[in-house]
Amino acid sequence: MRRQEVSIADIARSAGVSHTTVSRALRESPLISPNTRGRIQRIAREMGYTPNALAQSLQTQRTSTIGLVVTTIADPFFSDVVKGVEGIAREAGFSVFFGASHNEPEQEMVLIDTFHRRRVDGILIASSRVTNYEQRLDHIRVPTVLINSQAQSQHKLLYRVAVDDYLGAQMAVEHLLQLGHRAIGYLGIQSRPYSNQQRLSGYQTALRAAGVEWRDDWIMIAPKEEASSGEDVNAGRELLPSLLDAGVTAVFCYNDMVAIGGLMACREQHIALPETLSIVGFDDVNAANFVTPQLTTIRQPKVQLGQLAMNVMLDLLDGRPGQDHILSPQLIVRNSTTPFTHN
Amino acid sequence: MRRQEVSIADIARSAGVSHTTVSRALRESPLISPNTRGRIQRIAREMGYTPNALAQSLQTQRTSTIGLVVTTIADPFFSDVVKGVEGIAREAGFSVFFGASHNEPEQEMVLIDTFHRRRVDGILIASSRVTNYEQRLDHIRVPTVLINSQAQSQHKLLYRVAVDDYLGAQMAVEHLLQLGHRAIGYLGIQSRPYSNQQRLSGYQTALRAAGVEWRDDWIMIAPKEEASSGEDVNAGRELLPSLLDAGVTAVFCYNDMVAIGGLMACREQHIALPETLSIVGFDDVNAANFVTPQLTTIRQPKVQLGQLAMNVMLDLLDGRPGQDHILSPQLIVRNSTTPFTHN
Repeated sequence: MRRQEVSIADIARSAGVSHTTVSRALRESPLISPNTRGRIQRIAREMGYTPNALAQSLQTQRTSTIGLVVTTIADPFFSDVVKGVEGIAREAGFSVFFGASHNEPEQEMVLIDTFHRRRVDGILIASSRVTNYEQRLDHIRVPTVLINSQAQSQHKLLYRVAVDDYLGAQMAVEHLLQLGHRAIGYLGIQSRPYSNQQRLSGYQTALRAAGVEWRDDWIMIAPKEEASSGEDVNAGRELLPSLLDAGVTAVFCYNDMVAIGGLMACREQHIALPETLSIVGFDDVNAANFVTPQLTTIRQPKVQLGQLAMNVMLDLLDGRPGQDHILSPQLIVRNSTTPFTHN
Repeated sequence: MRRQEVSIADIARSAGVSHTTVSRALRESPLISPNTRGRIQRIAREMGYTPNALAQSLQTQRTSTIGLVVTTIADPFFSDVVKGVEGIAREAGFSVFFGASHNEPEQEMVLIDTFHRRRVDGILIASSRVTNYEQRLDHIRVPTVLINSQAQSQHKLLYRVAVDDYLGAQMAVEHLLQLGHRAIGYLGIQSRPYSNQQRLSGYQTALRAAGVEWRDDWIMIAPKEEASSGEDVNAGRELLPSLLDAGVTAVFCYNDMVAIGGLMACREQHIALPETLSIVGFDDVNAANFVTPQLTTIRQPKVQLGQLAMNVMLDLLDGRPGQDHILSPQLIVRNSTTPFTHN
């Protein structure tokens, strides 16, 4: 199916003027009298003329488009980040190309190449897994902002907006320590290696500062599985029982979906929460509020992350200096954590 | 910041051949010897040349892009639909422009106009609220597929993929009737007028067929609020208590998020579920599994809806006849419904 576009030539024929006159009138050129401009613009409107953004882009070298890569849209964390990006982009007159990497570095590169072929002005990547951007970006030369990157690439066109995973983990574990827990486990995820490592380090730092020596079997890291929306929930559901066997009275989980999997495992085994086990998540996705008990968690400013990433991009595109940003997370205490009591 | 693109002229200079020769070599033209072609292609690769999809599109009149409008990405229902669309689009070599209408017909039209200016090949719209497409599409002339449309526009370029709301509602209420409930309420949402009306009608048809006369105060419809991810949950949370006051023993909710709001209201008021009240949702979003009790619901094939919509689009773009599709939903029985007992 091929569109029958209304062209400038069509309008010129209809108005009985030259191609150049139409073109000038539509660009509000002062070379055309206000009367003629008004008449031509009215005819163009009546004929359903829409300026071709593609043709304009080839002239200006700017497309007012950005490409956005997320791992999977089914992760509620990303829906808020996307919302933040999209809001700022729309206000600034940008359209957003969208793609899911499914947590695969190869797929991420395919999307970046596709976006580049479409001459996006910039690329935003959430939870990047690509480690060799240096080489790729030398070729692509597009401003790129990474949101909560999972890789440690460095490049002069590469900027970062992230939440402080290490600090967030410390806050979670300190909350549990203050409630009197000592045997505190960590339930992590291999598929997001960087933030998992940061959260594990924060957990260990907080325990060390409190003089608690953790046991190896207090720490469980789920191996990387095929990316799916259920991956994190399944990890929590499958691994939580072995932490209970290891004797922990509290667990800090990599994120809320892992924690919700943990809640499901406890429900299946009729384990009373939070009396038997205190659980802390990370992210503060909507579902953290819906589950029973409601989840104590470390809130990431998700919408703000997306907004900030797009604002950094707008700075770069306008020639202002780019800047990295590390945002602080926030402890949200709900009902899944309770003071430790000897039974 | 302006990109320094490697142009065909750059490659010509570097290879010491004419612009035309480079252009032909990159297009695999037989007018250039295989050796020269190979040499020029290697140089182009080494210099980091990427073909400009914009320039190609102006030649072919095809952009291999589609525009996708959802109401809000924060609704877990849409994340699965988007996943379905994106998967099929990527396989077919299409890129997806993305925008959120926030349930506002005006914003939906702004997005459609933007997509048109970008010369997308087609537009997919989830939960459309626009009622005057006829007029708009005569101007835009882009194949359009509506997913679960909330408006009743007719147009020759307009196709529909939807789930049978009326049937789903009947299935929900028949399930409750089979459990012995008679005083069954409906908790609806004004902001999605078409599917709300269909689900209300299905509810009424099922009760009528069972000889149950419903009372006016068994039916509560939440007024349209400003669109937000929490809108549906809040509606359920606020309105469920008045249905309990009206004496219902079971409630069919417009969707899972409304039902989850109902669960939260019961948790706050310490009302035992499902003993005091059976609750049925609609959609089968992930969270339906996470909440306590796990939600009995009507499953929409969400990923399949997105896939089917994109496949209809590909048919239209390839000149094959388009077709409307109505998919059947499925009853998923979990723990939020239980047989009626006299207390």
